[in-house]
Amino acid sequence: MIYITRKEHFNAAHKLYNDKWDEAKNFKVFGKCANKNWHGHNYELFVTVKGEVNAETGFVINLKDLGDLIQKDVTEILDHKNLNLDVDGLSDVIPSTENLAIFIWKILNDEIKKLGAQLHCVKVCETENNYVEYFGG
Amino acid sequence: MIYITRKEHFNAAHKLYNDKWDEAKNFKVFGKCANKNWHGHNYELFVTVKGEVNAETGFVINLKDLGDLIQKDVTEILDHKNLNLDVDGLSDVIPSTENLAIFIWKILNDEIKKLGAQLHCVKVCETENNYVEYFGG
Amino acid sequence: MIYITRKEHFNAAHKLYNDKWDEAKNFKVFGKCANKNWHGHNYELFVTVKGEVNAETGFVINLKDLGDLIQKDVTEILDHKNLNLDVDGLSDVIPSTENLAIFIWKILNDEIKKLGAQLHCVKVCETENNYVEYFGG
Amino acid sequence: MIYITRKEHFNAAHKLYNDKWDEAKNFKVFGKCANKNWHGHNYELFVTVKGEVNAETGFVINLKDLGDLIQKDVTEILDHKNLNLDVDGLSDVIPSTENLAIFIWKILNDEIKKLGAQLHCVKVCETENNYVEYFGG
Amino acid sequence: MIYITRKEHFNAAHKLYNDKWDEAKNFKVFGKCANKNWHGHNYELFVTVKGEVNAETGFVINLKDLGDLIQKDVTEILDHKNLNLDVDGLSDVIPSTENLAIFIWKILNDEIKKLGAQLHCVKVCETENNYVEYFGG
Amino acid sequence: MIYITRKEHFNAAHKLYNDKWDEAKNFKVFGKCANKNWHGHNYELFVTVKGEVNAETGFVINLKDLGDLIQKDVTEILDHKNLNLDVDGLSDVIPSTENLAIFIWKILNDEIKKLGAQLHCVKVCETENNYVEYFGG
Repeated sequence: MIYITRKEHFNAAHKLYNDKWDEAKNFKVFGKCANKNWHGHNYELFVTVKGEVNAETGFVINLKDLGDLIQKDVTEILDHKNLNLDVDGLSDVIPSTENLAIFIWKILNDEIKKLGAQLHCVKVCETENNYVEYFGG
Repeated sequence: MIYITRKEHFNAAHKLYNDKWDEAKNFKVFGKCANKNWHGHNYELFVTVKGEVNAETGFVINLKDLGDLIQKDVTEILDHKNLNLDVDGLSDVIPSTENLAIFIWKILNDEIKKLGAQLHCVKVCETENNYVEYFGG
Repeated sequence: MIYITRKEHFNAAHKLYNDKWDEAKNFKVFGKCANKNWHGHNYELFVTVKGEVNAETGFVINLKDLGDLIQKDVTEILDHKNLNLDVDGLSDVIPSTENLAIFIWKILNDEIKKLGAQLHCVKVCETENNYVEYFGG
Repeated sequence: MIYITRKEHFNAAHKLYNDKWDEAKNFKVFGKCANKNWHGHNYELFVTVKGEVNAETGFVINLKDLGDLIQKDVTEILDHKNLNLDVDGLSDVIPSTENLAIFIWKILNDEIKKLGAQLHCVKVCETENNYVEYFGG
Repeated sequence: MIYITRKEHFNAAHKLYNDKWDEAKNFKVFGKCANKNWHGHNYELFVTVKGEVNAETGFVINLKDLGDLIQKDVTEILDHKNLNLDVDGLSDVIPSTENLAIFIWKILNDEIKKLGAQLHCVKVCETENNYVEYFGG
Repeated sequence: MIYITRKEHFNAAHKLYNDKWDEAKNFKVFGKCANKNWHGHNYELFVTVKGEVNAETGFVINLKDLGDLIQKDVTEILDHKNLNLDVDGLSDVIPSTENLAIFIWKILNDEIKKLGAQLHCVKVCETENNYVEYFGG
């Protein structure tokens, strides 16, 4: 069993705001992230898959295929988007880094099996000072 | 003459959109950056000042003073904001990295003279793949 | 279960020197790190906690709270300090990166439970070429 | 149990090419990496070992010893080399990042036991966008 | 006048070897870089152009156009290539970082004028420890 | 004329403290950097030299020679040292990043001429958030 990781990027706007709360509570909990006019980030995404090495290719998975999958199914729908407004499947949760990682896991998990490997970890870095890792389950 | 640089950060939303043009032309010129619901970035700001070394302190400028100035006059008004909507002085230009660097230069230039040094360069990094430098004039 | 990591910094002086040994043995074991007049590092600290995502906030833990905790209980006592001389609790061990990671774990472990999450890993980077990870136990 | 990681570098040429296939199939599977005249990378190698902290030194392992071992047994044979042509033990496999990580694990695993610790992970970064981790077994 | 920089990448093999010298002299001058079977690098390329800001776009130059130009005229001919064997225009010089920067300058200088800006600097990073800057002339 | 830069590292302890002032004034001016028991940094040093490209080597300067010079004349005397106590030539100034850059310039300027090139810039990074550049004169 060996693990391989592919890094991709996307730039997006979001805000952290719970509509069930008033503005004061939102600012108390989310601080500046509750700004109603949005803010944004350069997100870094690391997708780690695991599997056996194929003797003919030396690969667990063809990184070109993995990169194409991530770009088609993840980056295409998140890059240069507003995570609160533009993304089906994120509109009913707070678009925190945690929920973003879980959202991406759900998109990729089955697709990576079709490529002959297993998804191990989705890591999302929101800034250079914080990141989330999700291993499923 | 010696040069010292201070790095700061801000996270903001923006879009590149010229209201004088229709949507098709905006997408042709600005691509995904024209998304009407915004996107965003982790901006890195490098402020370089120059001057003589003070023999008593070994400093061109006290970095604590420079950092405080940048945070009070620049970061405070840009961080976790929408550059198109929330920032007086940016609302009448396209909030490109170029215009952002010029905007920051105008804010800091006189204030840095008051600290006994000269502003040399404002560098703004929008992503890890592009940055702008402005030297005034 | 999801994992979130917060990065902080501190700059400190230290030396690696076992007082039970003579100077020759100290230099043999610790090399240049045994210099009696100290040397120092820009330490990077990564604190990883795990827990369930709170549906109302989208958070495992409020990163503002985690950051405040680390700054109050860890950074405040290590930053711009001499790890051999200035830090209660480190004075009776060699201030290696290993012992520093264990020291920080002991400070944070119970406090993070009070914030409703579990400490998973303390990672301390001494230089860009070496780092230590401690998972407790 | 605590984990410590040492980073080293090597620069090497390679190509991904399966001699049992014709050129068309090689380009289909390996893309530009199949260029017959080679290409190359700045590889980053992270070696993680685990063990107990020695009370006299504060160390799991002396990083000087670990660094010397990696340089003598790994870097020396890979740095500024052609991975397909110059390295005994790699000539009969595709020199993918996966096979490189396994190759390095086999070299280091027993030697690190002699230094009183256990090899935990060999991580090889081929570019800033992809890396492999091998934990043995 | 404002300066904007675009970063691109290419991975290539090369060797530093002067055919007019014998092998001993080549190794004396170029060290391990003279290995006859090649080695390679992940090159980073920073292209800086300067010009006036266009009021309608906020741009000195459209980064999409600049990126396309660099990829078509530079990256396409250098990426996953052997700099000694595969690149017309480099085959008669030592493919040092210096000569690579000059080579790229010559390709881009006129083309950037056609995009309405001026080439200011070509910076090529061969490893994280060395880079070359060429400003023309 | 072309510019080439070599990066080196050193780890050192220092404090910013003017002995002509009392402790209160030192803390007012230098903040935590005045801690009498020292603190320290991982310094990064970038030395940029300029010159013509030698047609036989493709080099402005042999980086091996430049690296050896920096290590022998600069790193050797600064690495794992206390900048206030251990370094002749720094003991009579405040060991600020500014004074460190000037100190290194004076050491290297003539030696680089002997290698057939000209020193252009000494850049010293004290933390990831601040650096100094000195161009002589």
